[in-house]
Amino acid sequence: MSRFAVGLDFGTESARLVLVDVESGVEAATVIDPYPHGVMTRALPDGTPLGPDWALQHPADYLTATERLLVEAKKAVGADSIVGIGLDFTACTILPAARDGTPLCLRPEFARRPHAYVKLWKHHAAQAQADRINAMRPEFLDLYGRRTSSEWLHAKSLQILEEAPDVFEAADRIIEAGDWVVWQLTGREVRSVCQAGYKAHWQPESGYPPASLLGELHPKFPALATKLVPPRPVGTRAGGLTAGWADRTGLPEGLPVAVAVIDAHAALPGLGVGDPSRLVMVMGTSTCHLLLSRHKVAIPGISGVVRDGVLPGLFAYEAGQPATGDALEWWVRTLAWSSDGAGDVLFQRLNREAASIPPGAGGLVALDWWNGSRTPLVNADLAGVIAGLTVGTSPAQVYRGMVESTAYGTRQVIEVFESGRSVEPVTELRVCGGLSRSPTVMQIYADVTGRTLHASATPHASARGAAVYGALAAGRASGGYDTTEDALAHMRVADFTEYRPDPAARELYAALYGMYRELHQHFGEGGTVLMRRLKELRV
Amino acid sequence: MSRFAVGLDFGTESARLVLVDVESGVEAATVIDPYPHGVMTRALPDGTPLGPDWALQHPADYLTATERLLVEAKKAVGADSIVGIGLDFTACTILPAARDGTPLCLRPEFARRPHAYVKLWKHHAAQAQADRINAMRPEFLDLYGRRTSSEWLHAKSLQILEEAPDVFEAADRIIEAGDWVVWQLTGREVRSVCQAGYKAHWQPESGYPPASLLGELHPKFPALATKLVPPRPVGTRAGGLTAGWADRTGLPEGLPVAVAVIDAHAALPGLGVGDPSRLVMVMGTSTCHLLLSRHKVAIPGISGVVRDGVLPGLFAYEAGQPATGDALEWWVRTLAWSSDGAGDVLFQRLNREAASIPPGAGGLVALDWWNGSRTPLVNADLAGVIAGLTVGTSPAQVYRGMVESTAYGTRQVIEVFESGRSVEPVTELRVCGGLSRSPTVMQIYADVTGRTLHASATPHASARGAAVYGALAAGRASGGYDTTEDALAHMRVADFTEYRPDPAARELYAALYGMYRELHQHFGEGGTVLMRRLKELRV
Repeated sequence: MSRFAVGLDFGTESARLVLVDVESGVEAATVIDPYPHGVMTRALPDGTPLGPDWALQHPADYLTATERLLVEAKKAVGADSIVGIGLDFTACTILPAARDGTPLCLRPEFARRPHAYVKLWKHHAAQAQADRINAMRPEFLDLYGRRTSSEWLHAKSLQILEEAPDVFEAADRIIEAGDWVVWQLTGREVRSVCQAGYKAHWQPESGYPPASLLGELHPKFPALATKLVPPRPVGTRAGGLTAGWADRTGLPEGLPVAVAVIDAHAALPGLGVGDPSRLVMVMGTSTCHLLLSRHKVAIPGISGVVRDGVLPGLFAYEAGQPATGDALEWWVRTLAWSSDGAGDVLFQRLNREAASIPPGAGGLVALDWWNGSRTPLVNADLAGVIAGLTVGTSPAQVYRGMVESTAYGTRQVIEVFESGRSVEPVTELRVCGGLSRSPTVMQIYADVTGRTLHASATPHASARGAAVYGALAAGRASGGYDTTEDALAHMRVADFTEYRPDPAARELYAALYGMYRELHQHFGEGGTVLMRRLKELRV
Repeated sequence: MSRFAVGLDFGTESARLVLVDVESGVEAATVIDPYPHGVMTRALPDGTPLGPDWALQHPADYLTATERLLVEAKKAVGADSIVGIGLDFTACTILPAARDGTPLCLRPEFARRPHAYVKLWKHHAAQAQADRINAMRPEFLDLYGRRTSSEWLHAKSLQILEEAPDVFEAADRIIEAGDWVVWQLTGREVRSVCQAGYKAHWQPESGYPPASLLGELHPKFPALATKLVPPRPVGTRAGGLTAGWADRTGLPEGLPVAVAVIDAHAALPGLGVGDPSRLVMVMGTSTCHLLLSRHKVAIPGISGVVRDGVLPGLFAYEAGQPATGDALEWWVRTLAWSSDGAGDVLFQRLNREAASIPPGAGGLVALDWWNGSRTPLVNADLAGVIAGLTVGTSPAQVYRGMVESTAYGTRQVIEVFESGRSVEPVTELRVCGGLSRSPTVMQIYADVTGRTLHASATPHASARGAAVYGALAAGRASGGYDTTEDALAHMRVADFTEYRPDPAARELYAALYGMYRELHQHFGEGGTVLMRRLKELRV
């Protein structure tokens, strides 16, 4: 009888299930379930308005999706052939909860309070708090490019404290949504080293940032320490499925459930990478760059480095570009404004037209800051720039210019990685996510970075990675694996499409990258404070 | 019996006729006739391809339109009640012609030669030639902001010489299309001080630029002197209608025809302005700013200053923004890309949505260089910039940001005018042209410039001005007028819509204008050479 590991992937708009055959790596079933409340950016379900840059979710959506997907898993292969459950989740996506795990927003007295809901990773309203933390220049940021992000736990938590002190006080826990789902499934509050390490500045030697420092930000902020429990390593078992969830899903009580992992990070084993030098890029609405290393170096501009953060025994470096697909979708949405046209059709047309435009021929260079800059500037106040527009500029030229700008951003990330001398040189790029399915985009990335790209055909890299963690949670004794090497040897993805850099294009892009760097320095590295002033005016 | 003056207005896409009652100023008839060949930017009629930045016209189109419009004039009011014909024309719009007035492109041997056709004002392929003239820093540019433009006669003529020396040699004349039409109508080659002064650097004291200087650009360029005849003052009679044209139109032989005037410049008397301090802005695809003064000052960045160039007895200063409506149309065209939507409907929707966006609320600041910069930088290599884009930026916010950027450009033009101390302060703006009919655009201009705008309801300001010149050509003896004052006292436009600056918006825009100036300095005044490098890459 075949054995399967369940991978649950909680994305921004929906959750998905993948069942992976632990022997062959073949996918047995995949199901996608959209969240009923989606992303709340304007108002709560009852109409309570949200401010600019807010992005919330409803925690009930996660459980609705989990139940439905696990029921589907059982239907697909039967309860007995499932060896374990792994799950990955967007992060930093946090919620305030009571000691028993009840989200505060489900309590009637907090139901109309935006701060009681889940703050999605792309909730960007805590920039002021992030700025103040960064201004302190605390030592705990040394491994995070010396900057925290408005997207991360400390800025978001401080925003709750300052704007809704009663919510902060009532929250026994401020927990990542991925860890919260594991808690619901197993009855055990198990936080993940991955989420804690990359989003809450936890490190094995020092733990979470010291309460004394937090007190300098707000007299009541040291209480945050009581709301965070120490995390557990990834690739381990968090616990077994509770009787209640066994009832709801038809899966066996006690079925191993893995410690949660950040969605992008799960793509690393999902793409079969278990060693240094191969950069994994998850290119969806945003891009997350992941690189393993045997060494720990504090690299300026890197989002974070955590030992055992993605795979046991190695340091995992994370970097990011907060708007890649998101910026391109903005352009498609803009072009569809007059027509309510179908986005997919427009995307295809833009890709087709853009493919025939030579590098630089549009005369455009853009800064890819439609959602700010994560690596290297960690500044959500920055916004996009397009320079070189003329009355002859076509929609496809703008599209290509925007794709190129995200590729320049990626080249810069690689250079930042390699500037840390102890990190192994990047010899290969492995790519997954929605953008990896566009040959136009992939070829531009190969030409701009001067490196061969291996784009995965699977739309489920993270979910597959989650299944790998599920198999590890089961262990050999329960039909899974005890080591990453064993798991990856069996559960790997077969098909990659290769994109090699064109030498002539590569040379042209070297010049254009220089122009990108020049704009980057001017608008982002002290040339001007224009972006901050524009942000202050924006409504 | 009522008496009428004919105003013929030759625009970029079409010619129009206005009949103005010389006693009351009331318009008796207006007719618009599109040019059959339109603007040729890709190929000649026979398919001969054109390079990037080319823009040609076919001279036969002008005569076809002239005949049709004069026939309509006769039909509308009868031949006997017409006292004179005035005409205005786009400029610098030049063609090579034989001594007898035959355009070279009508000769079989030159029919397939792009350089033998009319170079429309917005033919931008002579930038390299303009750059070389500017690099010489000749004294004759002192009254032209020390720079010639790629749009003007010398750059365009030098391009003909260098790229098609046989066309240059065969051309006995290089003549403005407006002067050429006057030549056709009257049989007399009469060049206008307006066209020669603003576009060919002619000045009363010194004439055209000296042949000796032209020789430094190309050994055969001094021959240009033989191709240009001295111009005649505006507001005078060029000659009478020929017997041939009397036959073709049914109008009387000898009917007075005025010296030609540049289209934008004709709007100054067309809007009833005959004295200093009231800035006239013609806001169509581009904006032309005109200001009368009693004094001559060399102001950096001004397009030109010519004595008697627009009205006798006064200096007329010209400045310009080469893409106002053109840039906004680019945005509408971009938004219509996916839908083939109707431009007018989109324009209206954008204006409506943009009107409800507070100043700066879009968080955008743009540089209005979609066609380069005329005043103050006189540089066609510059291209547009939009800074501050986010995934939340709406099409209407971009539209408003682009309108604002053109308004900042206008504010800068006013400051450049006023920086010449001997020019009277600008107390009022009188506006005509397509954009003057958008209350959203007009209010933004009032708020950004901090001045009251008087927008004319007439869509025929230039044509009305041409009719004023027609009445002056006739003179009192033939039923017209002998002086500008008399003509303007009778033939003025009645209706203006007033837009007053809102104090709060004005203050916000002062800050945003500071950001515009900062971008302007960085990209246009030596901060970076990025724009030139992008231009070099553009295909």
